[in-house]
Amino acid sequence: MIIVMQLGAPQEQIEAVAETLRARGIEPLILPGEDRCAIGIPASLSSDQRYDLEAMLGAMEGVSKVTQTSHPYKLASREFNREDTVVRVRDVQIGGGTFVVMGGPCSVESMEQFRASAEIVKNSGATILRGGAFKPRTSPYSFQGLAEEGLKIMKQVSDETGLVTISEVMSGDMVPLVAKYIDILQIGARSMQNFPLLIEAGRSGKPVFLKRGPSAPIDEFLLAAEYVLSQGNPNVILCERGIVPLDRTYTRNTLDLAAVPVLKEYTHLPVIVDPSHGTGVARYVAPMAKAAMVAGADGLMIETHPNPKEALSDGSQALTTDKFTKLMDELRSLAGFLGKKMS
Amino acid sequence: MIIVMQLGAPQEQIEAVAETLRARGIEPLILPGEDRCAIGIPASLSSDQRYDLEAMLGAMEGVSKVTQTSHPYKLASREFNREDTVVRVRDVQIGGGTFVVMGGPCSVESMEQFRASAEIVKNSGATILRGGAFKPRTSPYSFQGLAEEGLKIMKQVSDETGLVTISEVMSGDMVPLVAKYIDILQIGARSMQNFPLLIEAGRSGKPVFLKRGPSAPIDEFLLAAEYVLSQGNPNVILCERGIVPLDRTYTRNTLDLAAVPVLKEYTHLPVIVDPSHGTGVARYVAPMAKAAMVAGADGLMIETHPNPKEALSDGSQALTTDKFTKLMDELRSLAGFLGKKMS
Amino acid sequence: MIIVMQLGAPQEQIEAVAETLRARGIEPLILPGEDRCAIGIPASLSSDQRYDLEAMLGAMEGVSKVTQTSHPYKLASREFNREDTVVRVRDVQIGGGTFVVMGGPCSVESMEQFRASAEIVKNSGATILRGGAFKPRTSPYSFQGLAEEGLKIMKQVSDETGLVTISEVMSGDMVPLVAKYIDILQIGARSMQNFPLLIEAGRSGKPVFLKRGPSAPIDEFLLAAEYVLSQGNPNVILCERGIVPLDRTYTRNTLDLAAVPVLKEYTHLPVIVDPSHGTGVARYVAPMAKAAMVAGADGLMIETHPNPKEALSDGSQALTTDKFTKLMDELRSLAGFLGKKMS
Amino acid sequence: MIIVMQLGAPQEQIEAVAETLRARGIEPLILPGEDRCAIGIPASLSSDQRYDLEAMLGAMEGVSKVTQTSHPYKLASREFNREDTVVRVRDVQIGGGTFVVMGGPCSVESMEQFRASAEIVKNSGATILRGGAFKPRTSPYSFQGLAEEGLKIMKQVSDETGLVTISEVMSGDMVPLVAKYIDILQIGARSMQNFPLLIEAGRSGKPVFLKRGPSAPIDEFLLAAEYVLSQGNPNVILCERGIVPLDRTYTRNTLDLAAVPVLKEYTHLPVIVDPSHGTGVARYVAPMAKAAMVAGADGLMIETHPNPKEALSDGSQALTTDKFTKLMDELRSLAGFLGKKMS
Repeated sequence: MIIVMQLGAPQEQIEAVAETLRARGIEPLILPGEDRCAIGIPASLSSDQRYDLEAMLGAMEGVSKVTQTSHPYKLASREFNREDTVVRVRDVQIGGGTFVVMGGPCSVESMEQFRASAEIVKNSGATILRGGAFKPRTSPYSFQGLAEEGLKIMKQVSDETGLVTISEVMSGDMVPLVAKYIDILQIGARSMQNFPLLIEAGRSGKPVFLKRGPSAPIDEFLLAAEYVLSQGNPNVILCERGIVPLDRTYTRNTLDLAAVPVLKEYTHLPVIVDPSHGTGVARYVAPMAKAAMVAGADGLMIETHPNPKEALSDGSQALTTDKFTKLMDELRSLAGFLGKKMS
Repeated sequence: MIIVMQLGAPQEQIEAVAETLRARGIEPLILPGEDRCAIGIPASLSSDQRYDLEAMLGAMEGVSKVTQTSHPYKLASREFNREDTVVRVRDVQIGGGTFVVMGGPCSVESMEQFRASAEIVKNSGATILRGGAFKPRTSPYSFQGLAEEGLKIMKQVSDETGLVTISEVMSGDMVPLVAKYIDILQIGARSMQNFPLLIEAGRSGKPVFLKRGPSAPIDEFLLAAEYVLSQGNPNVILCERGIVPLDRTYTRNTLDLAAVPVLKEYTHLPVIVDPSHGTGVARYVAPMAKAAMVAGADGLMIETHPNPKEALSDGSQALTTDKFTKLMDELRSLAGFLGKKMS
Repeated sequence: MIIVMQLGAPQEQIEAVAETLRARGIEPLILPGEDRCAIGIPASLSSDQRYDLEAMLGAMEGVSKVTQTSHPYKLASREFNREDTVVRVRDVQIGGGTFVVMGGPCSVESMEQFRASAEIVKNSGATILRGGAFKPRTSPYSFQGLAEEGLKIMKQVSDETGLVTISEVMSGDMVPLVAKYIDILQIGARSMQNFPLLIEAGRSGKPVFLKRGPSAPIDEFLLAAEYVLSQGNPNVILCERGIVPLDRTYTRNTLDLAAVPVLKEYTHLPVIVDPSHGTGVARYVAPMAKAAMVAGADGLMIETHPNPKEALSDGSQALTTDKFTKLMDELRSLAGFLGKKMS
Repeated sequence: MIIVMQLGAPQEQIEAVAETLRARGIEPLILPGEDRCAIGIPASLSSDQRYDLEAMLGAMEGVSKVTQTSHPYKLASREFNREDTVVRVRDVQIGGGTFVVMGGPCSVESMEQFRASAEIVKNSGATILRGGAFKPRTSPYSFQGLAEEGLKIMKQVSDETGLVTISEVMSGDMVPLVAKYIDILQIGARSMQNFPLLIEAGRSGKPVFLKRGPSAPIDEFLLAAEYVLSQGNPNVILCERGIVPLDRTYTRNTLDLAAVPVLKEYTHLPVIVDPSHGTGVARYVAPMAKAAMVAGADGLMIETHPNPKEALSDGSQALTTDKFTKLMDELRSLAGFLGKKMS
């Protein structure tokens, strides 16, 4: 941590900062600098100390800014764990060099619709089946999902097909219910900083699929993962799904694909890309899906629906059976070229 | 609703859209237009119908875009309720022409600290006391609040001083606990789209103070309010607290003050401004607080701490006792000039 | 400047950075730190050195980031000039405690229209007359302005009324032409980083009114001012006019009003707010104009048009004669209350 | 164009809008709608008419919003020209199915440095050589380029190697000078709405390489292209180079790769991606370059420097000789897999 003083901060203000540090057993290193003084903290601090100190020092007179010299996350960091985390669910592996595709409809609407979706997914060669039973909808008047009935449908279809399932959980108290039926707990973009949910998901021991919030910088995304990891649950999967767009005329979000190599550098956790929400437009899903694979993603989450025109939610971004199957073929071929193994 | 077709969309695609509408009992109005066809829906639709139709039509071939001609919120809209909503808590009135100030520390840290804060607030003439018992912190390693112990402290200090209290609730299952001790339930910016929480807060019957999410357009903000209102709870208070900034060098967020006149035009709900989070810097709080009053806000939420340097959270944005008291004096004087009544 | 090394950067990489500095006569201060090493540069560097060093060091192996501990602008900085800059044009004073209003239409359309506009401005008590002769329009098919003919109209109306004039110049080679007729050169938001223009405007010796670019952080805004100042022209006036909005449904831009106290702290230059472009909606201009005064702005630029419905550009944001006159009355009254002098 | 009236707009306001249209020879189509009236314009309008009408109608009482039902650009639109535009410079082809790479240093620093750069570019198999002679630098104290001396170096190296050259031109009056030495005129991101420059570049007849502004929505980007095209110059090449980022901790901009399929759908112009500026970090250039090819881009602009550590500008994002050569090999191999021809 480095504390930069204001230009011309008098000696007593510099001394006050130094004293505050010494009172906590930290020996400051004073750098009389350039055109202002800076104070370095060479000692190793715990995360708690760093946060408390940052707030406190930032409020002191004469202090211009407090700069962290290391990242705020720890368990999520590549420095903490050099090896790629591999999340294993039955025979499916996420991360660690294989490439996984999660497909399925936005919402579970009925046994028939979901079975048909599962068939598309399975026949195409994908291994994870997504579906929403509880839907976070912007409007209270939109379709909100089938709730537990939807989870039961997912469980049964999973039993029939052998596909691993993933579904969103929207609050901490619903974690046990969802965990009873579903393999992977999804935390949606709007819930990325729902801290009670992150903690409960962490405690569940189930793999957690964490979507990046639409205005979350990378550091906040990894700190949200840290919440789950700090509960002793190492099975966190990250998902880039688009950030706030410049305008909403052509796409619903801005897919931040460079976040893939950034995340692969700074964290050991698997990184999945969701081009369906990331663009919001079915015909941009295929090019962005392939681009994500090439950029180094560990997999994709893609919406598909046997009949997008009749989907009760997000129909405009779901792929038809034909388009999803074609995309899976192209991804397999591209994976072959790149020497990647499809999960 | 207006459906704009792609340029050169063939007659059968136009007809397919028209048929889809007629099948639902809606007579479309076809506008052969400019350089493309548009299809108007003159009938009055329920919100449910609108949302479902938008998704479905947007996925049809030949459709370029579906434009809503009315706003997606209803109960929150000024058109639904021309009169300003006034929220009353004991003898304090929020909205309807008076101006209210909510002051207090970011976190409840101890009985001593909170009593001292309450004294500042009360002596300065403010009427609502804020404090955080459950803190949504970006890092799992930061101070997370005193939990129920903090609520009890707030309740006792409220009893001693007569101040109305407000405190954040972070999940739906915690609503009863917080509602037991606290007068106004605060829903934080990160929870603006925590729909189970919105619904529980709505059901509690308590006044709900809803902060705008950092990347929420006005429509999404008002739809979040709609979730609470649609539970039969009319006592919703809106709060602008800053949106995602262009850069974070000088302020933590961008305070969107023009949202005040926009909201006052489109909704009947009271609008409060939080310049403490909105800027993140104590010395910008006073100018933005006064600007908010002039721009038409119904009140302010301001962080104050008896000793910001020792605050366990957000110390850099809290006002000292002196500065808070001075600001309250200036606000009272400005209110007098503007002919506003301080609550 | 502080160079933070990557975690576990080996001694030879640290030494390579140190050597690079010593080769330039700079003695580095090595801080063995926390969980990584940092290297401080205590010597005073010229701006040139800082920029070159930052690029070079940032590219070295083992370097995690290079943090500047002082701001990149110098002549524009409050630290360079503690006294407020006051720009004087004839008997009008901008900055230094007075409050100035610049009014007029977006475009000069004809002698009649512009004379009528000038009358509104003069009668209302404003002292500076704005008008566009060269219009930067997003579409090549929109009205582009009357060019030199427009400048001549402005000059003549200025002679008739005594009003100081301001008009936009769009390229360096047009500076002499505009400077021949107009008192203050306006550099538009889209031209904020048109460096040849900034340099020519600087050389002209005329006061320069510099609008903030829609995606410009404060540092880039002040560096653009630095371009003008570094030509020996001290008469720079800054203008906040709205930044990229979250969405465009209700306002055209997000007016960043907190930039006013930020700029007043970090620079000595006068700060004007343009609520017409800042919101893009005539009925939000008055509340934001008054808020800007309260927030500490040195003045306003406001669009007014004798007949907004017939305006050839930006009609939806221009105030009618009545509304402009009423706003001027309110501003005068508010200035009286605040103890500010209207220019 | 569709004009949506405010809820409950009285009949006379609706009639006033209709009259305004009829006075211009346009027969309005009134849609008594849902919960408010809309007015459609079925006639075909010229672009001029549309813009003027939009401003005028938007300012009328009772009007809630004016929606364009077609895009504002015309010559740039795919609807205007179904065939891909192919720009040909000597034997190099840009667009139309081939893939082109433009490589070279940010700045031309000396004959030696530029010759060495050209050698890297040529040996690696790239065909276009970039270099900056006039550098738009954020700070007036940074290296500004060698000016005409730099252009002469570029011309000579082009003559020696046969490589096509591209270099930035910063103002309209410099177009003839740059056009004298250089094959393709680059218009930088900061100049995207420098309209006098767009017009002069259009008139020059030279191919124009137009970079997207950091806060430009797609419509504004294509309208900037329209400025060039409307001068009778069909040879416009578009470049996505990153938009304003959420934060600047890990990348300098957010590369909007989904803009590639969006642009390929809505315009016939070639689309190039610049991952060097788009990320600002050398080690993210290769993954994003390959992702851009897969996403459908027509080519890349990549910074390379024989010795990035000594680069006078943007050293941190330039690839070393080895890394550039390796990337070119990978691109060629990927192009082979995708069935694309490298130019």
